[in-house]
Amino acid sequence: MADPQLNSDAPADGVRNEVYDEDGFVAQPFRQNVEAAIEAEDADFLQQEIGHLHESELGDLLEALDHGERQSLVRLMGDQFDYTALTEVDEAIRMSIVDAMPNAQIAEAVRELDSDDAVYILEDLDEADRKDILERLPFRERIRLRRSLEYPEESAGRRMQTEFVAVPPYWTVGQTIDYMREDEDLPESFAQIFVIDPAFKLLGAVDLDRILRAKRPEKIEDIMHETRHAIPAEMDQEEAAQVIEQYDLLSAAVVDESERLVGVLTIDDVLDILQQEADEDIKRLGGVGDEEISDTVFTAARSRFSWLLINLVTAILASLVIGLFDATIEQMVALAVLMPIVASMGGNAGTQTMTVTVRALASRDIDLYNAGRVIRRETLVGLLNGVLFAVIIGLVAAFWFDNRGLGEVIAIAMIVNMLAAALAGILIPLVLDRFGVDPAIASGTFVTTVTDVVGFFSFLGLAAIWFNIG
Amino acid sequence: MADPQLNSDAPADGVRNEVYDEDGFVAQPFRQNVEAAIEAEDADFLQQEIGHLHESELGDLLEALDHGERQSLVRLMGDQFDYTALTEVDEAIRMSIVDAMPNAQIAEAVRELDSDDAVYILEDLDEADRKDILERLPFRERIRLRRSLEYPEESAGRRMQTEFVAVPPYWTVGQTIDYMREDEDLPESFAQIFVIDPAFKLLGAVDLDRILRAKRPEKIEDIMHETRHAIPAEMDQEEAAQVIEQYDLLSAAVVDESERLVGVLTIDDVLDILQQEADEDIKRLGGVGDEEISDTVFTAARSRFSWLLINLVTAILASLVIGLFDATIEQMVALAVLMPIVASMGGNAGTQTMTVTVRALASRDIDLYNAGRVIRRETLVGLLNGVLFAVIIGLVAAFWFDNRGLGEVIAIAMIVNMLAAALAGILIPLVLDRFGVDPAIASGTFVTTVTDVVGFFSFLGLAAIWFNIG
Repeated sequence: MADPQLNSDAPADGVRNEVYDEDGFVAQPFRQNVEAAIEAEDADFLQQEIGHLHESELGDLLEALDHGERQSLVRLMGDQFDYTALTEVDEAIRMSIVDAMPNAQIAEAVRELDSDDAVYILEDLDEADRKDILERLPFRERIRLRRSLEYPEESAGRRMQTEFVAVPPYWTVGQTIDYMREDEDLPESFAQIFVIDPAFKLLGAVDLDRILRAKRPEKIEDIMHETRHAIPAEMDQEEAAQVIEQYDLLSAAVVDESERLVGVLTIDDVLDILQQEADEDIKRLGGVGDEEISDTVFTAARSRFSWLLINLVTAILASLVIGLFDATIEQMVALAVLMPIVASMGGNAGTQTMTVTVRALASRDIDLYNAGRVIRRETLVGLLNGVLFAVIIGLVAAFWFDNRGLGEVIAIAMIVNMLAAALAGILIPLVLDRFGVDPAIASGTFVTTVTDVVGFFSFLGLAAIWFNIG
Repeated sequence: MADPQLNSDAPADGVRNEVYDEDGFVAQPFRQNVEAAIEAEDADFLQQEIGHLHESELGDLLEALDHGERQSLVRLMGDQFDYTALTEVDEAIRMSIVDAMPNAQIAEAVRELDSDDAVYILEDLDEADRKDILERLPFRERIRLRRSLEYPEESAGRRMQTEFVAVPPYWTVGQTIDYMREDEDLPESFAQIFVIDPAFKLLGAVDLDRILRAKRPEKIEDIMHETRHAIPAEMDQEEAAQVIEQYDLLSAAVVDESERLVGVLTIDDVLDILQQEADEDIKRLGGVGDEEISDTVFTAARSRFSWLLINLVTAILASLVIGLFDATIEQMVALAVLMPIVASMGGNAGTQTMTVTVRALASRDIDLYNAGRVIRRETLVGLLNGVLFAVIIGLVAAFWFDNRGLGEVIAIAMIVNMLAAALAGILIPLVLDRFGVDPAIASGTFVTTVTDVVGFFSFLGLAAIWFNIG
């Protein structure tokens, strides 16, 4: 988020400097001014004050407004509205704005955008609208966008920009610079140029700083580097982003099956992709899938329902375990009072181990084959903390109920469950990953099922034996 | 991670292509070859096969080896070892390698590195070693590194690179290009050049593609843009990264209090910072702080202990609530069997809401003042799912224990606890954030405390009233 204090060298033109408050949220006075202007249908004010906002600032503003205001804002701004801002908002908001626009207007908007931003908007539309809009576009743009849209969802081909600079290998640095000075049709910004043969087959790439350091008569083929990390257009966007991140590239060529250059994936796309994937991981661990804060009540409730239903089944399973010992509990109600402690500590310890494991899997620091070291480590951590908490809770229980045996039983159950938690926390994500299931989405339920079942069974079972009841 | 299939245009020189297996892990045969060469002290083999690895590949290899092998590898590689790889491994591994090196060798290594990478290694050393190493460096480097190290930890000043290209505003494009062609002392790669006055005060910046598109006689001041997003060196690295991300910059100038240019923060640093922060958020939500998979058993156990201790206190709190109703449970043991279901469903629903809220706070989509809409939404989602699960669990309980009243009691308790979960899940992170506490680290415990206490209290309390027992 931009901190307004940063912009000390920006023109002091009032509203411009006050898009954000000091915490980085859209500033109240700015939003109120905009809302008043929308209410008053004051198009001049809006075009003047909002027309020069950065796309991400406009995106944040759209998210701060309510549904009807968003549509009015787009309408009042007319062709001063920067449609790139639509790539900066949640999907639900983007769809609600686009759905309210006639196809002719969407086509106009799409023409103004870079191809990757255009695809972003087009891919969410239904088949018929998309076809209609594409047909309104000039031939070259239509072909390019259609090709991007033919690649699978979340592939590099979907995210790539089809505008790029490509030159033949036999050109000199001078020729290349002159070409860039003359050509009006260059992409808006670029960090490297690509070298191709007459069939568009990718031969290499040259970073711009390399060109600037070279003398004019030098040949491009002598200063280009091999593009070892060309991205196949079919590759999953996350994998592609990881390649670019690993090798610190500013951009990477995207090639089709015949190794012809079809586009470029830039580092700002990579940043978006990696942020999006991290967000997905966090939400999956929290059991909320790919929900956004702007989703409707019904969408959110439905997507959470299935997760809660699985949890209900595992909770009932734990209750069945307790049910086995109902006679024991009847004779010693202190067991009912204490049993959630054993289960809860196991659940938390298991979640800790699972979190570390899921992250290590995501950064490929462990797999099923070299996991021995980590399993040993987690078992020892579980044992160490198990013993510590066994002593603490054993003393607490013994004094609370004035019953030394109860303290001993809960202490042993605690050690057993902490060990179970460690093993479940590491083995469950590893096995899920091995079978191609995303460990972030499914591990949590399995881990707490194990720690609930083992926790209740070991505590109540030990008590039944120890006190010979039930 | 690099997929070896990508490198179809790389030279087919055996080991080079086989650093990774098809899942992106360090390939077993490659690691075994390296381990054998270390065992045999075969420095030639290592220098030849590992000397040209990318720093990130070397980093992954180091992480795959064990402790002793890492140190031997560094020793055997000699000056062929690329110390940049140390910035790619976990802190514990970096420290264990650096600690085994004499200061003279660390100083040699640091001289080879870009300033930001050098700081990365120096900042973890103890005071005396750092001072000794800095004194072995040439004057200019010593001054630069010392300045970076004087900025606070995790600030932009710590992460910036002090190598950059800066020119006066009155130079022409031609002069600038000629300067870049002649100067041997340029940074290894750069995406923009900065414009400064004689006192090093920042005036603006020019992207390289802009220079390449301009004619030679044009003045730099005519093609430069204002650097609205200059980063104060004291700024927190995460905030700085968010500015660069928001405005899709390839790099940003870092300035001191007098607005003099002191360094540059590049997008690959930003990527690292944002990845690191996302990782931190995930781990905090999972209750494992900033633990790494390579931490020792003792470090990991200690850092998890405090979290588990807090959980123990809240679990005992829940037990105290159950203890209030021990007479009720004694007369109707089915309550003990069913009570964990109500608590567990509340805990999960609360975690869902909390996850969405924590993410929305991180991306600044909500704050305490505009939270009304979200609170309404979450309450409705909680009510909707509460009613659905009330019906399901009510029927299950009534049939299981053949007791219609029990079904009614658990149904009402479920609705109450799902509503409590929704409110706790949204209000607790918002309030923590308001008081400057990271909601990712502390929300979980508070939310499950609420859902446990409300779950047990409402279920057992209602049962006591309904059946008039206890």
